[in-house]
Amino acid sequence: MSGILYGVGLGPGDPDLITLKASRLIAGARVIAYPSLAGGASFARAIAADLISPNAEEIVMDVPMTVEREPAQAAYDIGAQKIAVVLDRGEDVVCLCEGDPFFYGSFMYLYARLAVDYAVDVVPGVTSITTCAARAGMPLAARNERLTVLPGPLPANELRDRIEGAESVAIMKVGRHLSKIREVIEALGLTDKAAYIERASLPDELVCPLAEAPEKAPYFSMILLTKGADPWL
Amino acid sequence: MSGILYGVGLGPGDPDLITLKASRLIAGARVIAYPSLAGGASFARAIAADLISPNAEEIVMDVPMTVEREPAQAAYDIGAQKIAVVLDRGEDVVCLCEGDPFFYGSFMYLYARLAVDYAVDVVPGVTSITTCAARAGMPLAARNERLTVLPGPLPANELRDRIEGAESVAIMKVGRHLSKIREVIEALGLTDKAAYIERASLPDELVCPLAEAPEKAPYFSMILLTKGADPWL
Repeated sequence: MSGILYGVGLGPGDPDLITLKASRLIAGARVIAYPSLAGGASFARAIAADLISPNAEEIVMDVPMTVEREPAQAAYDIGAQKIAVVLDRGEDVVCLCEGDPFFYGSFMYLYARLAVDYAVDVVPGVTSITTCAARAGMPLAARNERLTVLPGPLPANELRDRIEGAESVAIMKVGRHLSKIREVIEALGLTDKAAYIERASLPDELVCPLAEAPEKAPYFSMILLTKGADPWL
Repeated sequence: MSGILYGVGLGPGDPDLITLKASRLIAGARVIAYPSLAGGASFARAIAADLISPNAEEIVMDVPMTVEREPAQAAYDIGAQKIAVVLDRGEDVVCLCEGDPFFYGSFMYLYARLAVDYAVDVVPGVTSITTCAARAGMPLAARNERLTVLPGPLPANELRDRIEGAESVAIMKVGRHLSKIREVIEALGLTDKAAYIERASLPDELVCPLAEAPEKAPYFSMILLTKGADPWL
């Protein structure tokens, strides 16, 4: 009998936003796996740190940050092989995933490599989007409103078209695309309906109107824009 | 000192997907509040049932299901007044919210009525969207893909345009709109990329290809459609 691979969403960063199921799986794990970006500390491991057994075996996937996809994919190839060895000896592996495993998460790369041959249980987590909405006090969507999620790296004209076609918009991965996105929103006359949030739920969180956003944004930053209907109705 | 109103997301239905923070707040609550649809049992209360203190005071908002909005809004007016009385006497109120409070949730109506005068802490929860993706084994979005969330009641032509303009689409509140949505997706030639999920994470969950969906869908049902890129890359 092979082990089970658990892809466990950890939520946006505050360990208190981990689910009961994820918490139990991590605390009971004999083998955990997680990505580490460009040799740095792993954000996923940091979120779960207090739950991880000191005796747990740790499989670290060192993912290089390059524009080309091949080096990162090679890291997931190697990670998947290491995980498969553990599953083959009948032990479970708990893979730690920032946010939700299937929402702009790298777990999908492991899933593609391992779900054909092994049992995989994906445990959803709280996403950064609803966390940002909560922290900014901005209800995201109600009734028949459309919500569009856009990655910040998209070209300006595409961002503009998509923002026009939705009542609520969440723009992820703002980072170095902040000034481009601000210009698009300003040109649409929607700046006063937009909020900027960075590192939502973490101790150094920042929440402010888009007009007051800093010049430089970290990777973990988001812009929320809600044209929304009257929230009283 | 007034009490604090907590708007607590409970996740999609499996009590194991409640967050640690929500779990602790509910267990410690002396006063809870929740909506009940049309005099029926409250789904929110059912999710949290095992955590609620037997001595907790319960404020039930009986929300009628009508096309007109006024009767429902009157129910939130009354609920907000009852909650305000508790907050005024210095006690906290924990409001139970299915899914996430600000993601197609009714908590926004209470928020609009109470956030001006009282401290409100919104605790995000796992949404049905990422839960459905996890249960269907369908990664929702990666890299620079756009995700659009559409309510099923939208007109067919709008559904079609929005589905064409996104890599990934989640259609919520399918219910009695199932046949209309199926026709739109079929006309776009995308049926083989779509999954149908009802009551995700609950014991009577159903997950199947859209082509095999039943004739009738309950309110808590969703269609996921991912045109997605190669998940290996």
